[in-house]
Amino acid sequence: MNLPAQAPQTIFSTDTQMQHIPDHPLDQAVALTRNADGSLTGHTHPAYANMVGPFGGITAATLLNAALGHPSRLGDPVALTVNYAGPIAEGPFRIDAQPVRTNRSTQHWSITLSQGEEVATTASAVFAIRRETWSSTETGFPEVPPAQALERGQRQGAPAWTNNYDMRFVRGVIFDTSRPAEDLDSHSELWIRDEPPRPLDFVSLAAICDSFFPRIMVRRPYPVPAGTVSITTYFHADAPLLAAQGERSVLGCARATHFGRGYHDQSAEIWSADGALLATSHQVVYYKE
Amino acid sequence: MNLPAQAPQTIFSTDTQMQHIPDHPLDQAVALTRNADGSLTGHTHPAYANMVGPFGGITAATLLNAALGHPSRLGDPVALTVNYAGPIAEGPFRIDAQPVRTNRSTQHWSITLSQGEEVATTASAVFAIRRETWSSTETGFPEVPPAQALERGQRQGAPAWTNNYDMRFVRGVIFDTSRPAEDLDSHSELWIRDEPPRPLDFVSLAAICDSFFPRIMVRRPYPVPAGTVSITTYFHADAPLLAAQGERSVLGCARATHFGRGYHDQSAEIWSADGALLATSHQVVYYKE
Repeated sequence: MNLPAQAPQTIFSTDTQMQHIPDHPLDQAVALTRNADGSLTGHTHPAYANMVGPFGGITAATLLNAALGHPSRLGDPVALTVNYAGPIAEGPFRIDAQPVRTNRSTQHWSITLSQGEEVATTASAVFAIRRETWSSTETGFPEVPPAQALERGQRQGAPAWTNNYDMRFVRGVIFDTSRPAEDLDSHSELWIRDEPPRPLDFVSLAAICDSFFPRIMVRRPYPVPAGTVSITTYFHADAPLLAAQGERSVLGCARATHFGRGYHDQSAEIWSADGALLATSHQVVYYKE
Repeated sequence: MNLPAQAPQTIFSTDTQMQHIPDHPLDQAVALTRNADGSLTGHTHPAYANMVGPFGGITAATLLNAALGHPSRLGDPVALTVNYAGPIAEGPFRIDAQPVRTNRSTQHWSITLSQGEEVATTASAVFAIRRETWSSTETGFPEVPPAQALERGQRQGAPAWTNNYDMRFVRGVIFDTSRPAEDLDSHSELWIRDEPPRPLDFVSLAAICDSFFPRIMVRRPYPVPAGTVSITTYFHADAPLLAAQGERSVLGCARATHFGRGYHDQSAEIWSADGALLATSHQVVYYKE
């Protein structure tokens, strides 16, 4: 990775509570250096390139990393919203991460990514110190074969970032013309993990939450211009639960509810290999007919 | 409503494309005056008071109104995220609404609500000029009796804001101790409209999306401290579809997926009386015990 021109003061690990793997492309891609004015500098990473600009998930992970690594950080992420306002050009970018309000057990963040004078991405995050309470999961872990029983998905023609994930589809691959038209829905189930394997943490989970292809290309099996406009992730797992997951694949389930007038929503659940709901994530995607 | 001390320059209608009903409490509650520095001043409204501070839905609607009424506004809302960072005291508040990026057909907003030096609420919004495309709704309109066949919900002991809604529950009222414990889930279905009736627009729809009680009190039928921390709404309807809804009740369906360590999520669908999906909305709620 080419480091930006500014003199680095600190290089973050991805999360001080987690193991940092400096050689992993994910850790390289989300690395930030702190500048004298408190802003951060990062750099696009070729391993996470998408069709145009970087994979949105790596941008989300980098913005979250800016808050995770901030000296005033309180607690762990509960919610993260990322708005993809404009394209990110290959090269360095600036991140401003501000804790706009810190309460006794919660902290609210406002984060922007800019290049030159242009804001490319905005984000907000809620962090919290979490305490043990009554708990329950109302939705069920689906009946699926284990990751090892499935083949890794084909990646010919797919953008670079997909090489950094091991995806094994149970159902709902994109561009599947073998399904009869009346069976088509936008529902996907897949096992996914970082490739090479990497212990799960908030940063990698934030990226995985944006790894589901636009549902329009599952529902209608041919390519159309499409991309995430805004994504919101709710983290149900705390740091110990993520750590317990280790390098194993997580199960992702994604589907849309409505397509219309150039935008569709999609919602995803991310389950641990042990059947714990780690995160739910929602996004709105633009698409062209 | 007491107007704030600053000299008002302009009073917004709620949405220039919609009919403005100056006497309706919703329109009074979201009214804003533009200050010389471009900021806006609003004021809490007693009709939308909650247990502590204002009903979150009216705050969301007011923040959206700040973007809707901005002279630089482009298009209509597609996504709105509101983070409730701290309490809002009774009295005036300041809103700063900034279009951080305007593209050819999309516009990204950053909005904050503050009192004195403290930020109480942050928001982001995506607006877009929408165009006709292929469309489909994957989820179905549930089988429910019409609003007229149901009684208006009881409001004894409920906070003031509930008096401004006509809610008719099909299932999932809060604090329902009549259901056997094994039947308990967090799923609610209800018809809801503004009271007194008011034509639906983006502002009132944004408020309705936060009108679902915390799911923890549906799932476990007794009161606990709980409140929305962050809400994200995706608007599937455009302005003409909302206008066609008129003053009729909309159908709201809400449920949680996971409760744990002090936070639970919940997701809602809002359907028109004609069976069109108007919005989907997601939030994370803190709860105690």
